[in-house]
Amino acid sequence: MVMEEIQVAPPQAEEVRIKIVASAVCHTDLYHLFERMHKDGFPVVLGHEAAGVVESVGPGVTEFQPGDHVIPLFVSQCRECRFCKNPKTNQSRMLTSTESRFTCRGKKVLQFMGTSTFSEYTVMNQVSVAKIDPTAPLDKVCLLGCGVCTGFGAAVNTAQVEPGSTCAVFGLGAVGLAAVMGCQFAGAKKIFAVDVNPEKFEKAKVFGATDFLNPKDYDRPISAVLAELTAGGVDFSLECVGNVEVMVSLPTCEGLGGQCAGRMDDVATRPIVLIAGRTWKGSLFGGFKSKDGVPKMVQAYLDKKVKLDEFITHNMSLEQINEAFEVMKQGKCIRTVISVSPQ
Amino acid sequence: MVMEEIQVAPPQAEEVRIKIVASAVCHTDLYHLFERMHKDGFPVVLGHEAAGVVESVGPGVTEFQPGDHVIPLFVSQCRECRFCKNPKTNQSRMLTSTESRFTCRGKKVLQFMGTSTFSEYTVMNQVSVAKIDPTAPLDKVCLLGCGVCTGFGAAVNTAQVEPGSTCAVFGLGAVGLAAVMGCQFAGAKKIFAVDVNPEKFEKAKVFGATDFLNPKDYDRPISAVLAELTAGGVDFSLECVGNVEVMVSLPTCEGLGGQCAGRMDDVATRPIVLIAGRTWKGSLFGGFKSKDGVPKMVQAYLDKKVKLDEFITHNMSLEQINEAFEVMKQGKCIRTVISVSPQ
Repeated sequence: MVMEEIQVAPPQAEEVRIKIVASAVCHTDLYHLFERMHKDGFPVVLGHEAAGVVESVGPGVTEFQPGDHVIPLFVSQCRECRFCKNPKTNQSRMLTSTESRFTCRGKKVLQFMGTSTFSEYTVMNQVSVAKIDPTAPLDKVCLLGCGVCTGFGAAVNTAQVEPGSTCAVFGLGAVGLAAVMGCQFAGAKKIFAVDVNPEKFEKAKVFGATDFLNPKDYDRPISAVLAELTAGGVDFSLECVGNVEVMVSLPTCEGLGGQCAGRMDDVATRPIVLIAGRTWKGSLFGGFKSKDGVPKMVQAYLDKKVKLDEFITHNMSLEQINEAFEVMKQGKCIRTVISVSPQ
Repeated sequence: MVMEEIQVAPPQAEEVRIKIVASAVCHTDLYHLFERMHKDGFPVVLGHEAAGVVESVGPGVTEFQPGDHVIPLFVSQCRECRFCKNPKTNQSRMLTSTESRFTCRGKKVLQFMGTSTFSEYTVMNQVSVAKIDPTAPLDKVCLLGCGVCTGFGAAVNTAQVEPGSTCAVFGLGAVGLAAVMGCQFAGAKKIFAVDVNPEKFEKAKVFGATDFLNPKDYDRPISAVLAELTAGGVDFSLECVGNVEVMVSLPTCEGLGGQCAGRMDDVATRPIVLIAGRTWKGSLFGGFKSKDGVPKMVQAYLDKKVKLDEFITHNMSLEQINEAFEVMKQGKCIRTVISVSPQ
């Protein structure tokens, strides 16, 4: 990535221009950069887990005015389409909603995930922006723009973890730790935290994990170990690695499964695994209806019902963005928050 | 298959010996016979979709007495294990519960699916037997021992089809037709019946299908056709073919999916298909807690809320069993009911 002076055109109809105050760094940014999810996806402004302040609004914008504190949403909520009206899905007709308003030396620069928050300004359709409590610290609640909602919601909304249940969370990055927190919030009695890096276990304890398993300590599949430890399997499994092999192993260790991350390879299983009464769910943004859910999560943070500060291991400036990516690649951070603009 | 004189030992503790009156023929019998699900699964008495009368009971049997009308269950319900106490699953600790009591010329003969109903008598554990209303015709309600409960329950219990929803049922054998009936029972507004054999459409109409699609009439995937016809996809898809390719295509044509049949090949999909808010469910015996569900389905038949007679296209004697299998192999029947013993 390089620092460039870009032009961010004024908002058009139903759009808002947002001054980004803080943006965290997420693996999806890295994925786009290094595995080129879209081969023609460059040049682009990355970044999608952020918080900021509305700078100006386009014609027809009724919900926002300059000065509003907001979180950009990579999943929109138009409240009008068939999907928005269906309580079972957080899909929306408009998944990424705005054409890019970025140019650099006269040439178009693409918008990433409809957000592009590693920029002092970005323009988004109002269906993809959540207004939040102005007292919330933007350099903390930015985490609710992706990872924390994804993991927490995967447990609470998608898997619908139940009080007294037994859960297993695979992978203890930000998404996995948020899933652990979601399991605890939902009243799970026992939460197995599973990771090949035992250094993550201490952090997992902070978020509510009760038991810790390193697959490297066993010569048999971790699903078999879990089945032994739980008299037949856990009630809910949450895959937060993005590893297809882990996903496929889930239904073999539990009765009812929720998942919260995924890569592009195929997942495969024998039909009998599902036929025997299991459910395999995917979860996008933790199943949250984005505009409705994010302000509530901000409130839950202000009410000290969910943790955010504990995810943040590094704070850096926008100039340090490549360093922030390097720390992430090496697995040395949970979340790095980039200070983009002064508030 | 050959007709043999066999010995059926008396019931042991907690077992009942059942005189089988009628047994329908199901593809799972055929599958075992020709594709040898278990290579060492012979010699065996096939048959698992039946109804009969209790002939004698072993020590410790409190629920049954001779003369009770019953349906053998290939999914048990012990009411005591962790799974039986979980409302979300119809698994039980004891899936097939009895050791075979069959011998032929002094040699052990295996029991199939814990039932073996192509026999005048069979012995089963009481956790795998449902007592039913004695006024119900056994040569009709035998269908509730497998196929009809499987399809009907896949729609009603597993997918939980909702009033006013749009459904698609793939495959119009007995399971698929029962799924159509389940969708109608649940109040679906539109039910697409999909089969490569258009001769099945007339029957599907009887069970409540409103629209009919033959994939052979289109040069693009039927999921794309359904998406066009429904402004984005159906609400519930039910795969009743046992075709892995159909299973995999389901999530691409709908938002929320239930399934009701499966073979042994892998099913595979890209995680993003699930992550985008879909749910993939398997269904065993239509998700019914077997001992609780089957008597209620018998009652629903007596109350004319569910159809059974319309599934039965052939009636044959036990001596005609190979002919019944031949008719099934050729796809000429929906259900053939075998008269096993006079009542």
